[in-house]
Amino acid sequence: MKNKEKILKEVSLKDVRIDDQFWNRRLEKNHTVTLKHQYQQLVKTGRLENFKKAAGLETGNFYGMFFNDSDVYKWLEAASYTLANINDLKLSKRVEDVVELLAEAQEDNGYLNTYFILEEPDKKWTNLGMMHELYCAGHLFQAAAANYRATGKRKLLDIACKFADLIDAKFRLSEHKGVPGHEEIELALVELYRVTENDNYLKLSEYFINNRGKHYFKKEVENLSNVAGINFEQNIENFDNFTMSKYYQEFFLDENNKYDGSYAQDHLPVREQNEIKGHAVRAMYLYSAVTDIVLETGEKSLLKALENLWHNMTKKKMYITGGIGSTHDFEGFTENYDLPNKSAYAESCAAVGSIMWNHRLLKLKKDAKFADLIERILYNGLLSGVALSGDKFFYVNPLASDGDHHRKGWFHVSCCPPNIARLLASLQKYIFLQKEKNIFVNLFISSKLNAEIMGHKVTLLQNSNYPWDSTMNYKISLETSFDFKLNIRFPDWADGADVFVNGREQRVKVKNNYLIIDRNWKDNDQLKIVFEMPVKRVKSHPAVKENRNHFALIRGPLVYCLEEVDNNVSLDEIIIPGDSQIKVKYDADLDGFNYLEGKAFTEKHSNWENKLYIEKREVVYEELKFKAVPYYLWDHRDPGQMRVWLREYNK
Amino acid sequence: MKNKEKILKEVSLKDVRIDDQFWNRRLEKNHTVTLKHQYQQLVKTGRLENFKKAAGLETGNFYGMFFNDSDVYKWLEAASYTLANINDLKLSKRVEDVVELLAEAQEDNGYLNTYFILEEPDKKWTNLGMMHELYCAGHLFQAAAANYRATGKRKLLDIACKFADLIDAKFRLSEHKGVPGHEEIELALVELYRVTENDNYLKLSEYFINNRGKHYFKKEVENLSNVAGINFEQNIENFDNFTMSKYYQEFFLDENNKYDGSYAQDHLPVREQNEIKGHAVRAMYLYSAVTDIVLETGEKSLLKALENLWHNMTKKKMYITGGIGSTHDFEGFTENYDLPNKSAYAESCAAVGSIMWNHRLLKLKKDAKFADLIERILYNGLLSGVALSGDKFFYVNPLASDGDHHRKGWFHVSCCPPNIARLLASLQKYIFLQKEKNIFVNLFISSKLNAEIMGHKVTLLQNSNYPWDSTMNYKISLETSFDFKLNIRFPDWADGADVFVNGREQRVKVKNNYLIIDRNWKDNDQLKIVFEMPVKRVKSHPAVKENRNHFALIRGPLVYCLEEVDNNVSLDEIIIPGDSQIKVKYDADLDGFNYLEGKAFTEKHSNWENKLYIEKREVVYEELKFKAVPYYLWDHRDPGQMRVWLREYNK
Repeated sequence: MKNKEKILKEVSLKDVRIDDQFWNRRLEKNHTVTLKHQYQQLVKTGRLENFKKAAGLETGNFYGMFFNDSDVYKWLEAASYTLANINDLKLSKRVEDVVELLAEAQEDNGYLNTYFILEEPDKKWTNLGMMHELYCAGHLFQAAAANYRATGKRKLLDIACKFADLIDAKFRLSEHKGVPGHEEIELALVELYRVTENDNYLKLSEYFINNRGKHYFKKEVENLSNVAGINFEQNIENFDNFTMSKYYQEFFLDENNKYDGSYAQDHLPVREQNEIKGHAVRAMYLYSAVTDIVLETGEKSLLKALENLWHNMTKKKMYITGGIGSTHDFEGFTENYDLPNKSAYAESCAAVGSIMWNHRLLKLKKDAKFADLIERILYNGLLSGVALSGDKFFYVNPLASDGDHHRKGWFHVSCCPPNIARLLASLQKYIFLQKEKNIFVNLFISSKLNAEIMGHKVTLLQNSNYPWDSTMNYKISLETSFDFKLNIRFPDWADGADVFVNGREQRVKVKNNYLIIDRNWKDNDQLKIVFEMPVKRVKSHPAVKENRNHFALIRGPLVYCLEEVDNNVSLDEIIIPGDSQIKVKYDADLDGFNYLEGKAFTEKHSNWENKLYIEKREVVYEELKFKAVPYYLWDHRDPGQMRVWLREYNK
Repeated sequence: MKNKEKILKEVSLKDVRIDDQFWNRRLEKNHTVTLKHQYQQLVKTGRLENFKKAAGLETGNFYGMFFNDSDVYKWLEAASYTLANINDLKLSKRVEDVVELLAEAQEDNGYLNTYFILEEPDKKWTNLGMMHELYCAGHLFQAAAANYRATGKRKLLDIACKFADLIDAKFRLSEHKGVPGHEEIELALVELYRVTENDNYLKLSEYFINNRGKHYFKKEVENLSNVAGINFEQNIENFDNFTMSKYYQEFFLDENNKYDGSYAQDHLPVREQNEIKGHAVRAMYLYSAVTDIVLETGEKSLLKALENLWHNMTKKKMYITGGIGSTHDFEGFTENYDLPNKSAYAESCAAVGSIMWNHRLLKLKKDAKFADLIERILYNGLLSGVALSGDKFFYVNPLASDGDHHRKGWFHVSCCPPNIARLLASLQKYIFLQKEKNIFVNLFISSKLNAEIMGHKVTLLQNSNYPWDSTMNYKISLETSFDFKLNIRFPDWADGADVFVNGREQRVKVKNNYLIIDRNWKDNDQLKIVFEMPVKRVKSHPAVKENRNHFALIRGPLVYCLEEVDNNVSLDEIIIPGDSQIKVKYDADLDGFNYLEGKAFTEKHSNWENKLYIEKREVVYEELKFKAVPYYLWDHRDPGQMRVWLREYNK
């Protein structure tokens, strides 16, 4: 399809090697701790056992939440990405064993979902709105595509294709009216299409996207006693007496008990949507898939909707950490500018989803502003989701806390931990893109790229002490000199950039937020870029009520926060002048990090002399120092208050 | 008892006649609309019918809430006060008929409570903690004392005394361990003692106060199946599936299901209490009674507790409107400085109770600061509770609203409407006090006092256009000249006062917040006092989080608020400079009132150009005029937002 000529392209997983001070330890933990810890959880919580039961290797009922298969698939995806560049025989064997188990559990016709196989074999495809049946299939397909790309082995891919063919026959080819309640399969089918080049999968993805907004979920539950899941005893944390009918009423109907559907983005056809609504993770997966379709087909009407939705999300419904989802009630988007801090949801999965969506938009629109956003999410709202130790996770990432929110090893609904794992395991995907004579550098993660441009081999070495320092060094290795363009992202946080080629300062063009260094490159050429990376005081739009008279501190990609452990007074008492100098200092604790230190005040209460309301008073301030640490690091030391938005001193 | 010599004394109800521009219409409405409207409600809602059933005049079960008798008593009290100075034969007959009905319903031994007579005659006195049995008796006694004082008739007083004697025998004389769950009888018994001079009633009141804090309620429910109310189907608004055991658990136990009791001030003996806690109305009635005991006995240990409790309430737990109670959950006090505006409770009954308590403290402590508080509550948090029309009431008086809170004609639990009625009907009580050669003027309500000082007849005429104007005119009429002291409250809102006697400026002493004009008064002497009454911007203690960067506008006794109907932008968008001039203007609407007008700004959002977070920006303001109206008047015009605390402009 001709659209593919215009877009930016990913490089092969194996062609990028990360070697970065900041990320090495994280990725090593992800490999050595997280993947092991999560595998143990899959065993402990019966998730793998469900497959054994479905395969007939063990007896017993399905155990756990009906969508637990998806956690196995996300672990498989994460493990597969890891194997792309790391030779780990034990992990490789473990992956193969799980794939073997899936093969044994898969039914002869290709069907694979252990809940339905074990509990309701006759109720397949009867409750797409609530039972996550197509969602689980989607995670299988994504894992299969990743596994094939990383290892070249076909076994998991074959399982996926067999199931995808069954779903294609059930839905698209027989025009069965239905779409997934929780999107995911749509983007996974495009991935499957990309690795197999089987057009059917792309068409099936389009089929699901084009049928969204037709209120099929309403029809599904017209006779609630016929649908799947009704008699299964669900046991969802924080939902007392969970039943399908309560779930339907609470999430799919409005206050007047009329069908709404925006929870699952089913309120309108996708092409007519322009305000981002409903469950945040679902929205991210859907719009990632829609962007994939545009990447493959160039369809204009979908593109217009995507632009409106992205604009609405990023300008009216996103936390400064990149987090999305303002309410715990339905894990989703609320009104424009409704961004409460303490009760923020900002689910880790939604951060993963938003990175996925923005990565696709970056490829499509070729504008580094999407990479700015990927970076903001990655270093803040996503990275906060996993502890330095690699075995504790946030499901929810608030921007303020009174000290009672902590990372946990696992959750009853445990979508987030393996989602973070697969994102980190595939981090090399997000650094570079390529198109004809152009290499695009989107993230400043020290790494080596082996690329091929117009038949020439190019090795690009990126090196820096980012995010603590903003000098980026590049070394180009070539067999022969030739002309190509290096497009280095000019980040939104940088006030300026000095570009040096082989030590000589250069003036360069900026386009679509990329610095373009276009020259006849020679072997061993050196490129240095020094970005201005000051501490910034950022305000939020005045319609965000909670943040009025407050500001946030950022430096480079990092959002900072105050923690009680570093500051000796209640954080709400700290008032920070709008103009004083803020110093950047180094702390060797917690793998080492830069913190911000500056002058602050607290208002002395003593001059209130037991008054509650008074007219005139001389305000007496006490000076103190505040210490702000990177947001992603919070809740690693003594528990206590945390605030991203800080009171501004106005006098 | 010798203590009585030291305290300030009330004057007879009949010796004060109000004739005041501001209050005349309110009192007339109270007489002609409120009392009629509420009597109709007593009929309509079965409250009077319960007495007929108890008297055997009708058949049927008790109907409504188990404490509904109290509304009849409060109406009787309000009607009785009204009859003190107004000759209304129809009302007088209606009162007599109700009293007659009470006499017929009363059991031979004196017992009177229609719920127990009709529903659980064998369960009397078994559930004092929750069934409001002694509370209802208290309201009967208060009504009886008021009726006797106002009319001189003994019938209601005899009913009350017969019941009080029964309770005295049941409790004090037989040392029965029990106290009321909802206080009220304690202060009512002191009233009964004052009109009858029967010491037993004072001793019974002390008995209840001295036994508080001994956790008797816990013992009562040890065998929950034996107590009253268990099988009666309660139907309380906002309480789904109300049961006694739920009620007990929610209100009397703490989070760990251990007995707490602070909800009903039973956590500690009264003498050991120093932080005001629990249900606000209960607290006010209890501490009113305790103050009454100190007034009668001078007991020091009780006085110390009262001082601590009053200090805690007024300096840490009171809204600027005088309202108290920060949570809907248990209608009560929460943590120090926890004063949310939109979700404020500030129940009208609690305002009545606080006026009652402060009036007693004023008599005891002889300091006009208590009258300052009475005035603040009266003109704001209390008066907001009743519409100008006299037939609609607030139960809850928040300090901010988004337009969904409105006065109603009656409530399922309808304590507030008759409570406001009895307060307004007895308003003359709160203007003057007397002691030996001193007259104390506590409220600036135009009125005539007929007093007797050292055997001399004195008529004091107070006249002003208060609260709109702060010039107070007094005329003294005497038969013969003699020395006495006029003590005029020097209000907390006044920045200064000029005193003129017969047109000549005088220097006077100030003591205990009274201006003391001590002279040989002659017939027709004129006193004029001109108080400085500027508009004031008031801040709240910095620990009140919600009010940071906000201020409230007051002038004289009135707290002002912004209403959406007067201001063309969303009220949260209005920012008011801290230093600009604020004009006082007159509006003839709604019986006429002064409003405040001044310069305000809204921040233009256009310069945000679709940004959600930005570093530097030039703030562009649009200027507008704001209009603030007295708080008591809010929700009389088009529904919409209301705010007492206004955003302060800091630049």
